[in-house]
Amino acid sequence: MENVKGYHVAVVGATGAVGEKMLSTLEKRNFPISKLTLLSSERSAGKKLLFKGEEHVVQVAKPESFEGVDIALFSAGGSVSKQLAPEAAKRGAICVDNTSAFRMDPEVPLVVPEVNEADIHQHKGIIANPNCSTIQMVVALEPIRKALGLNKVIVSTYQAVSGAGAMAIKEMKEQSQAILNGEAFTPEILPCGADKKHYQIAFNAIPQIDKFTENGFTFEEMKMINETKKIMHMPELSVAATCVRIPVEYGHSESVYIEVEKEGVTVQELKDLLASAEGIILEDQPEEQVYPMASTAAGKFETFVGRIRKDLDNDKGFHMWIVSDNLLKGAAWNSVQIAERLISLGIVK
Amino acid sequence: MENVKGYHVAVVGATGAVGEKMLSTLEKRNFPISKLTLLSSERSAGKKLLFKGEEHVVQVAKPESFEGVDIALFSAGGSVSKQLAPEAAKRGAICVDNTSAFRMDPEVPLVVPEVNEADIHQHKGIIANPNCSTIQMVVALEPIRKALGLNKVIVSTYQAVSGAGAMAIKEMKEQSQAILNGEAFTPEILPCGADKKHYQIAFNAIPQIDKFTENGFTFEEMKMINETKKIMHMPELSVAATCVRIPVEYGHSESVYIEVEKEGVTVQELKDLLASAEGIILEDQPEEQVYPMASTAAGKFETFVGRIRKDLDNDKGFHMWIVSDNLLKGAAWNSVQIAERLISLGIVK
Repeated sequence: MENVKGYHVAVVGATGAVGEKMLSTLEKRNFPISKLTLLSSERSAGKKLLFKGEEHVVQVAKPESFEGVDIALFSAGGSVSKQLAPEAAKRGAICVDNTSAFRMDPEVPLVVPEVNEADIHQHKGIIANPNCSTIQMVVALEPIRKALGLNKVIVSTYQAVSGAGAMAIKEMKEQSQAILNGEAFTPEILPCGADKKHYQIAFNAIPQIDKFTENGFTFEEMKMINETKKIMHMPELSVAATCVRIPVEYGHSESVYIEVEKEGVTVQELKDLLASAEGIILEDQPEEQVYPMASTAAGKFETFVGRIRKDLDNDKGFHMWIVSDNLLKGAAWNSVQIAERLISLGIVK
Repeated sequence: MENVKGYHVAVVGATGAVGEKMLSTLEKRNFPISKLTLLSSERSAGKKLLFKGEEHVVQVAKPESFEGVDIALFSAGGSVSKQLAPEAAKRGAICVDNTSAFRMDPEVPLVVPEVNEADIHQHKGIIANPNCSTIQMVVALEPIRKALGLNKVIVSTYQAVSGAGAMAIKEMKEQSQAILNGEAFTPEILPCGADKKHYQIAFNAIPQIDKFTENGFTFEEMKMINETKKIMHMPELSVAATCVRIPVEYGHSESVYIEVEKEGVTVQELKDLLASAEGIILEDQPEEQVYPMASTAAGKFETFVGRIRKDLDNDKGFHMWIVSDNLLKGAAWNSVQIAERLISLGIVK
């Protein structure tokens, strides 16, 4: 039997929607764990979670929790990360942070392994996991950029409620049931728990995710714009986003228009390129009604791309439809994948 | 009391989802009707419908049904229109056809009153009502084109299931209930009753509306592209569309990117322009979370526009969110509106 070294892994926010997916992903990937520390806020501490059949008691996250930890996966909100990730890093842990706390910090690499694995080497104890809607898009854009160049991206999203947390899923389901029953209901969470007004999400589409910034774009839209440029090392790339919440439980869909640099590219070339790219499954046979959907992408690690069409007016323009599980590739799986690369690159020893 | 002339109006497809809305719209608008003839296929004939409190028996539509009819509103499928609209026209009726049968016929005007009312004069007995997703978009685009010029349109839609008929609404509701109950279900209608495969619409997004054409775009997408150019008299306009069905009952939403001709236009100018345009209600106060939604546009005649933003890279680029009730402005109301113009323009006497 091979002697595989195990690592001390901490999961911060273990009881949340993403934390739960982190644990199941670590399990599914058979991640080499010698010790598992599950951490949370005081509110959730004391809960017991199963990992590979063994019960683990969730403990209150504090600076000392990270003594001896090799890899810490954070997904407990930006303020927790801001406070505790530096403490964990100071104690020698490498933090993979799934919040927006450090993403645009020039000192912190923002990583999607299929796109910019090499950036991991620049870490100073913290590596940021990008926003869910950004991750699946750059997975599809990077092979195109590499082969054909990329000038422009315009994306409209169709985002699942699980991106707003477990309570938002509950709200969508309860609202749906109320509407089917013809009963009254009061929206309390979506579009954004931290904002003033709340709207019906069941049988509706809400063009707001996160709060609005001064320029009229939402923070979610600005994340997609700024994070894409950072991950792809293309500050000059033209990116625009409209982010919309729709009544789907798991799986973000994206309608993406791009302009490549190279002239005369065919749809078949683009399909071949994406079919052979890391982390992508091409689902694109319109004659057989084969295309990606949230319902079929949910629960999977890959990014699914289809509906690839050449623009009818612009030789360099293409349209496509990109779908992935927002809690897996969009969060838990991308974080665990970074952790796996920390090992394979020899950064965590 | 003013002596208002009444007209003999026929509604073909009176028992369908759009037919029903045509009747309620005629009622709400107090349309000057001297005689009302309700027509349908043999299957639905004999049904009784109320109009202004009076019962009307639906009759089988045949060529002779149109004797003496002034205005015939068709919404019973393309094949019925192809067969009967010319027969009705031959008998002196002016037909407003809500199917795709004649829309791209160069002899048939394709009309959205706010955009190209004058085209009504070119009619030879048939006037086509455009596709639902096209109508609401051109209502918003026309005032922009007039004031600022227009070069490019890229739209991604979020379309309600009612566009696929009453049975599709039933399917969405039953599927939603099955999923909430954890029960199995078999999709039978959506994305397109006439196509081979059927997929889950509840808690999902399906990037297919209508069948696929040879170029990889769907017929719905090609309708948006070709009809927009025809209605706006801009064969050279660059238009691209991605059409997506989402689990909403009434109200199509559209994420639209445009490029205007004029330089230096501000968001405020665009807002002022749209706020004063015919048929549009501007809902655009991000700081107050005011933007259009299907849930608030359903049941209304107007087209709602909001989320207007200037592109961050292109001075001539703007993004916006356009919502309207697909069965009203997208179908019944636009048809009745054309009928009203036939009277106000003195075409029907």
